[in-house]
Amino acid sequence: MSNAGKLKFPMVFVNDADCKHLFDNRYGTGQSVWDGINRTTNLIVAGKNVVVAGYGWCGKGVAMRAKGLGASVIVTEIDPIKAMEAVMDGFKVMKMTEAAKIGDFFITVTGCNQVICEDSFKVMKDGAICCNAGHFDVEVDVARLKEISKESHLARNNIMCYTLEDGRRINVIAEGRLVNLAAGDGHPAEIMDMSFAIQLLSALYLVQHKGKLDSMTINVPKEIDNEVAERKLKFWGIEIDRLTKEQRDYMNSTD
Amino acid sequence: MSNAGKLKFPMVFVNDADCKHLFDNRYGTGQSVWDGINRTTNLIVAGKNVVVAGYGWCGKGVAMRAKGLGASVIVTEIDPIKAMEAVMDGFKVMKMTEAAKIGDFFITVTGCNQVICEDSFKVMKDGAICCNAGHFDVEVDVARLKEISKESHLARNNIMCYTLEDGRRINVIAEGRLVNLAAGDGHPAEIMDMSFAIQLLSALYLVQHKGKLDSMTINVPKEIDNEVAERKLKFWGIEIDRLTKEQRDYMNSTD
Amino acid sequence: MSNAGKLKFPMVFVNDADCKHLFDNRYGTGQSVWDGINRTTNLIVAGKNVVVAGYGWCGKGVAMRAKGLGASVIVTEIDPIKAMEAVMDGFKVMKMTEAAKIGDFFITVTGCNQVICEDSFKVMKDGAICCNAGHFDVEVDVARLKEISKESHLARNNIMCYTLEDGRRINVIAEGRLVNLAAGDGHPAEIMDMSFAIQLLSALYLVQHKGKLDSMTINVPKEIDNEVAERKLKFWGIEIDRLTKEQRDYMNSTD
Amino acid sequence: MSNAGKLKFPMVFVNDADCKHLFDNRYGTGQSVWDGINRTTNLIVAGKNVVVAGYGWCGKGVAMRAKGLGASVIVTEIDPIKAMEAVMDGFKVMKMTEAAKIGDFFITVTGCNQVICEDSFKVMKDGAICCNAGHFDVEVDVARLKEISKESHLARNNIMCYTLEDGRRINVIAEGRLVNLAAGDGHPAEIMDMSFAIQLLSALYLVQHKGKLDSMTINVPKEIDNEVAERKLKFWGIEIDRLTKEQRDYMNSTD
Repeated sequence: MSNAGKLKFPMVFVNDADCKHLFDNRYGTGQSVWDGINRTTNLIVAGKNVVVAGYGWCGKGVAMRAKGLGASVIVTEIDPIKAMEAVMDGFKVMKMTEAAKIGDFFITVTGCNQVICEDSFKVMKDGAICCNAGHFDVEVDVARLKEISKESHLARNNIMCYTLEDGRRINVIAEGRLVNLAAGDGHPAEIMDMSFAIQLLSALYLVQHKGKLDSMTINVPKEIDNEVAERKLKFWGIEIDRLTKEQRDYMNSTD
Repeated sequence: MSNAGKLKFPMVFVNDADCKHLFDNRYGTGQSVWDGINRTTNLIVAGKNVVVAGYGWCGKGVAMRAKGLGASVIVTEIDPIKAMEAVMDGFKVMKMTEAAKIGDFFITVTGCNQVICEDSFKVMKDGAICCNAGHFDVEVDVARLKEISKESHLARNNIMCYTLEDGRRINVIAEGRLVNLAAGDGHPAEIMDMSFAIQLLSALYLVQHKGKLDSMTINVPKEIDNEVAERKLKFWGIEIDRLTKEQRDYMNSTD
Repeated sequence: MSNAGKLKFPMVFVNDADCKHLFDNRYGTGQSVWDGINRTTNLIVAGKNVVVAGYGWCGKGVAMRAKGLGASVIVTEIDPIKAMEAVMDGFKVMKMTEAAKIGDFFITVTGCNQVICEDSFKVMKDGAICCNAGHFDVEVDVARLKEISKESHLARNNIMCYTLEDGRRINVIAEGRLVNLAAGDGHPAEIMDMSFAIQLLSALYLVQHKGKLDSMTINVPKEIDNEVAERKLKFWGIEIDRLTKEQRDYMNSTD
Repeated sequence: MSNAGKLKFPMVFVNDADCKHLFDNRYGTGQSVWDGINRTTNLIVAGKNVVVAGYGWCGKGVAMRAKGLGASVIVTEIDPIKAMEAVMDGFKVMKMTEAAKIGDFFITVTGCNQVICEDSFKVMKDGAICCNAGHFDVEVDVARLKEISKESHLARNNIMCYTLEDGRRINVIAEGRLVNLAAGDGHPAEIMDMSFAIQLLSALYLVQHKGKLDSMTINVPKEIDNEVAERKLKFWGIEIDRLTKEQRDYMNSTD
């Protein structure tokens, strides 16, 4: 819309603020997804094969916590650099249709559709569990799963079990909607404070700079990001170092 | 009772079986405690100071998962060897009265009483959260906490908040009863299978060896432990190596 | 120089390429720093307090590997967002003068000078070990350490031990020069391949686009970053997913 | 010898002391093996497939540090319970002949012979690296590897490269002798102090109990183990909790 000149008011990319994506997306989603899965399935995660589709900030958080729970983690990606990162972080990387054969838990965190689709359902193990922590309920293609199933029943509260023609059962948590919201309490409340602070200060910034903005779409100013972080550290009782004059001089001289 | 000759029937120490304490206690408790805490508090664990009292198998599991959730973990112990293990595992070790000053979450896993008592309540931070994953509701001395509080109210479902005279608030989950049972669904069902298998095979063993046992208290025979493990591996589809004849000869020759 | 219009030829910021800083700086430095420290000191890292100054990509790598070796890790930072990240990653964050009191190993990874200076030397524990993995040998202020020491001797090959007036001994590896180079073999050779590939392809890009560049200072084009990553994945025998037409349509429709 | 009544003097199983096997074997070997491998190969470990044969204390240490370096770890075992432990710790478990196909680094830590033998050499990837951290140089069957190779040359100091008939190259560090000793400096000196303390106090114990021992083979008395641990904690400046009288009473009443 911006490119097309159709944007009627300025927008701030609050989701790109460090205080947002580094924390809310990674640590918030990482924990809340597993909270949702654990309380819903009551299955042990240690020793299981966990497949995480997407290695963005949310995917990194989900994979990190899966590892922290003792799982053996597989990552699928479409971006070669993120794929390499996942490898170097000690995870297995493969195509979804390969991962589908060995996964016990599948979590989609991509923002795309048909991430887990018929090709994967066809080769999954009996009892596999699918859920979504990305955007919408199209990441796991539940619509298609329904079509190719001969039967479905509620296996446990909030878990629908689909039985395929060959008898294999595939479980879907919360109908493929966001597992941390639909099967949990969402992000821990306290981590949302930073996201909300970024939103508030960004809105304030827009008001204060009305008519002075170069562009209709702006990034969150670094000073807002820093202010939110400084306040959080203060709340935690944590003091950090400050550059001395000698250090500022040194940094400037070598830049 | 055994020492006093009062035991009327033979007993098997099923809790000491490797398939029991290594798995149920460590991985089962480790996950279910955090499931209970997370779904009850909806607080983020990453970046928090988590104090684990006791570094037995359960405590190891709880500490390991706390680390896996991104916490900074402190362990308290009375056993010097377990204390050293905790240090070498990268955790901080200190006396509970010191840990009390910095902890955000406290989990007792000792089997003892008064593990968190008045001395600790006196120095805790406002908002500290206590729970128990050991034996009984005396590990956190809730009775004493009530006495020294001027007020209490339900802060959230299953969390009682006690306000001390100086205004600091201390939260107790599930009245200090087992947090994974009283605030969660207990151990993941599937990990109990091994514990139950050990119990079943041990009972069978007692029947089969009626009148032939040397002692009224026996350990779980190694072959039962192994059989349960073999079956679990087979269920997982995992094959392991077997000693060849050459290897058995070599092992015997060097013993 | 670019801002001043003094740049006589175009430059590519190769260090900012994902294939460079995500891998070389983080995983390369992370491992090679500890290789250098371990082979030089022959001390166990598990259970030690490791202080990492700076939580950029290199610092993240060094801290991650310290944790992986069983250390209890403290991070110092001047950037509030990086400080928060370190907290959320489970590390302790404090001012260097506080960290100085408890650290066993100190590693500077900042690019700044006087990161560990007289104020810190004054409060360090007897036997503390300092080294640098940032830029130059001014991060640990060895010059000042020499001045305030009454004696120095070679404690072990490549480790100089400085004895302060009060008898405390502070050890410096490789005179404060880059510990992975001066006390080890530098980055693992194979991780440099990506950095070199980025440099080669960037140089080629400059030649191919001679006279067509908008600016004298350019970022590494995304397609070069991706190509290097694709080739590395292929070398590893790893296949990743590709967007289907349906997925590309979906992504475009929701952008 | 003891069973045959041929033991001429009493022996103490010092290797079974907690202060020995928990620390020296696990943390000492874990670090020193990777120190030896890293300084010898100068290869990055992150993202590699590391195969650890044997999941005893030493194997646990080696696997834990491999994970800490970012590797994807595979464990091979002959004991079903240890195999399950490895699975629950998040590692892959399979037969050596399967692991052989995908491993980049192989470390044997078993005490057995022919752990990596011709069957495995036949399927290894070109460039695989083998080393031993168990007992003797028969764990990796280097003798057989030589026989089936058409050529060998020193690939790097202390690394012999064997070229098989089909052109694949298999590297062996330090001729299959203990990699931490033959390619490194052995265990970090400071961790040996506990092992030596156990040995000293055990020898003293034998002298003090001359003629009063029930058996010619005895375990390290618990009080010796505890004393060594207490002294180490004191040296570290760590204080731990002591049972109060109320707690001792409680523990006795519920035993």
